[in-house]
Amino acid sequence: MDIISQIDAIFRPRSIAVVGVSGKSNKLGNLLLLSFMDIGFEGKLYPVNSKEDAVMGLRCYPSIRDIDGPVDMVVVSVHPDQVDGIIDDCAAKGVKAAVIFSSGFREKGEQGIRKEIELVNRARAGGVRIIGPNCMGLYSPQSKISFFPGLPREQGTFAFLSQSGSLANMLGLFAGERGIRFSKMISVGNASDLGVNDFLEYLGSDNETKQIICYLEGIDDGRRFLELAREISKHKPILLWKVGETEGGGRAAGSHTGSLSGANEIWAAAARQAGLIKVENLVELMGFITAFQNPHLPAGNRVVIMSGPGGPAVSTADACERAGLRLAALTAGSEGRLAAFVPEFGGSTSNPVDLSLASSFDMTMYPKATEICGMDENVDMLVEYISVLRKDLVNGLIEVQKRVQKPIAVITSIEYAAVDSPLSSFFGSLSRGELKELLKKMYEAGISVHATEQEAAKALSALLAYRRYRDQA
Amino acid sequence: MDIISQIDAIFRPRSIAVVGVSGKSNKLGNLLLLSFMDIGFEGKLYPVNSKEDAVMGLRCYPSIRDIDGPVDMVVVSVHPDQVDGIIDDCAAKGVKAAVIFSSGFREKGEQGIRKEIELVNRARAGGVRIIGPNCMGLYSPQSKISFFPGLPREQGTFAFLSQSGSLANMLGLFAGERGIRFSKMISVGNASDLGVNDFLEYLGSDNETKQIICYLEGIDDGRRFLELAREISKHKPILLWKVGETEGGGRAAGSHTGSLSGANEIWAAAARQAGLIKVENLVELMGFITAFQNPHLPAGNRVVIMSGPGGPAVSTADACERAGLRLAALTAGSEGRLAAFVPEFGGSTSNPVDLSLASSFDMTMYPKATEICGMDENVDMLVEYISVLRKDLVNGLIEVQKRVQKPIAVITSIEYAAVDSPLSSFFGSLSRGELKELLKKMYEAGISVHATEQEAAKALSALLAYRRYRDQA
Repeated sequence: MDIISQIDAIFRPRSIAVVGVSGKSNKLGNLLLLSFMDIGFEGKLYPVNSKEDAVMGLRCYPSIRDIDGPVDMVVVSVHPDQVDGIIDDCAAKGVKAAVIFSSGFREKGEQGIRKEIELVNRARAGGVRIIGPNCMGLYSPQSKISFFPGLPREQGTFAFLSQSGSLANMLGLFAGERGIRFSKMISVGNASDLGVNDFLEYLGSDNETKQIICYLEGIDDGRRFLELAREISKHKPILLWKVGETEGGGRAAGSHTGSLSGANEIWAAAARQAGLIKVENLVELMGFITAFQNPHLPAGNRVVIMSGPGGPAVSTADACERAGLRLAALTAGSEGRLAAFVPEFGGSTSNPVDLSLASSFDMTMYPKATEICGMDENVDMLVEYISVLRKDLVNGLIEVQKRVQKPIAVITSIEYAAVDSPLSSFFGSLSRGELKELLKKMYEAGISVHATEQEAAKALSALLAYRRYRDQA
Repeated sequence: MDIISQIDAIFRPRSIAVVGVSGKSNKLGNLLLLSFMDIGFEGKLYPVNSKEDAVMGLRCYPSIRDIDGPVDMVVVSVHPDQVDGIIDDCAAKGVKAAVIFSSGFREKGEQGIRKEIELVNRARAGGVRIIGPNCMGLYSPQSKISFFPGLPREQGTFAFLSQSGSLANMLGLFAGERGIRFSKMISVGNASDLGVNDFLEYLGSDNETKQIICYLEGIDDGRRFLELAREISKHKPILLWKVGETEGGGRAAGSHTGSLSGANEIWAAAARQAGLIKVENLVELMGFITAFQNPHLPAGNRVVIMSGPGGPAVSTADACERAGLRLAALTAGSEGRLAAFVPEFGGSTSNPVDLSLASSFDMTMYPKATEICGMDENVDMLVEYISVLRKDLVNGLIEVQKRVQKPIAVITSIEYAAVDSPLSSFFGSLSRGELKELLKKMYEAGISVHATEQEAAKALSALLAYRRYRDQA
């Protein structure tokens, strides 16, 4: 069976055993077990613990060998010295894949490296493929498997391939709260057996996945990675968060997943050539995901900036120019149409378009101006600084975006959006639930959301760079 | 009267008239009137409108001249063509200061420039000082004056001097929600009469103000600004957000406040020499404010990174090194003390300190590790990646910070902190009110809060640069 079919089979287990659960409720193994229950896994779940009869309402088995019926996947959260024995159990039971959550391998120096090699040899001899060790494993809303409670149950099109399990959890939870949905997440940890390139190849051919995100601390076969990336980027954008690029970061990567990280400059150049889109933190990544959700890539670098009132627009103009974008010159027709409702004083109908403080009272101003600027032939994309999101304003934008079909990036404070204040009587207010719903609708409409003007400008610039890569490829 | 005494008197009005209010409730003039009511202004408030008897429960006057008793300050929100007449009224009534909210002056080209010169001449002839036009005016919790409803009523030590009124509102509201408090805010707009340098000089000598923030689109007398900054920076840090530095940004600044912005490189070098601390967006600025609230500046560039679990620590190490910080080598004693409770597998006792997923269950781990690393002689400052804030954890940190007395920067998702999820039963959860309270306590304790590792590293690096400036000055 080729690697793609093998991984695809691993992603669709009908039965899962979790080794390392306890009678106490807040142990890590229990969290892993809860993850499957929380996402509604429909196959069989087998907690394994020789001292318990039942854990979290499920019948408990003394060992994997004692389970009746087949076991497709085993999740292992035990002391590293016990892992070998469990792999033997897996081999005896005919288990095809083991997710090794346990740490204490390559990231722990020479002795750990030996232990990891021994583990892989043993697994290969027994016909067991390994994900990890030192990882969280697999998440797939379609298969209803997960590695942390609270991850979204709905399916999306972004896949996340991560060497850090905690970042996979954080992205899943934080982004989930913004309406972002994933096709699959893979936390590979030390990537001892099934590696980054295996999963990347798989995701490249996976029909559920339309965009790929990679968080990497280092990679064994960088040449292969770049070859794969170059091909996959032709039809799916790949967002790359590469860390361990400085001396201190490299040392940190070594003690985290035992990774040997590559030099900064080499990676940066190679990544560009392979069409890879670089991001550098979780907040920026969430903004980039919302930008790459939009199917309409920009045709050029001409941007319209819109704000109400004007202060933030000046900073946004700086950020756009620094990111290689150019302020679009609106046609006289557009400026005339804007002048029909933008106040003469305190507003501006030329780019950056200043809708004035009046736009805080009149929720139709942003959508109207977005339609006018968005349909302007001189405009390739839009950035809108909306200090506080409001329901009618956002719904209006979503309506307009259907016709505009160009990237629209919104800079806003999500943190402040659902705060109650004396302003609520003037400007209205959102409940936390309404905010969540609005963010989800914006995401689905392909309107991106960013915390700062620099992040918005960088994301738009990345869309343009990707468009150019794809056009040349 | 010298400029400092003059401005100080303007900041303590006993009576304020607001011109440009209406019987309808959601006009801009009403918002300005509401601002004074919302913050609890204790002097007399006079709405002015010739067609109304009362506005928002207050007796309304046909003109400023008709008001019984003295008027110290007038706030003007009318069509620009009517401003001259109101200035004449102010002069006749003996009003010392007028805040001109109205736009339609220097930012509107040649005719506007002429209009602004005429306005200033007329005001000077009548003995009226002008703030604006095209501005929000003054905020001072001590004097109980404000330019937007919902700004904090409590007093702090940061002053904000801004050419953008909307950014002053946004900073006041957003930062207020995080517990950040201000001594004063000044929105100067076009700064036609009282200018940026006048207010900067005043804030330099203001006892209520211990740190200064400037948002500038351009400045008439840059040399004087830098001279003032150089002197003031010796005892008060000045955070400078300078925009309009690119061609597009410069044009935007012109149409916003009629500013002629300076070249990027010249400003950058001069700003460094004057001890100025540069920031580039609102989110970063809020993080910097929380960092500069800490009275303990770092003695050197050696940083400890702490996380649980490790993924984000690698990225943080990269960010710190790129910002010119160096990963501290912990003493053997510290590593030994950490080893007493940091798990051998999945954790790390060397820097970056990885407290493992166990730290999500045990709220004492971060505070214990902070005390050990914070008291280490090889450590100048700490960065802690705390994916989700928890009450006991934060309270523990605040306790420990009293002894550590070094900068502690926390990277966390405020946006996600008060979200309810299936994880709440494992990790606990915060209500929005509890989160707000925690953020305020962290702020008061001098523990800074940042959205990304890059922002945290940049803020720590800025603290160090400022320490060095002050030591040399």
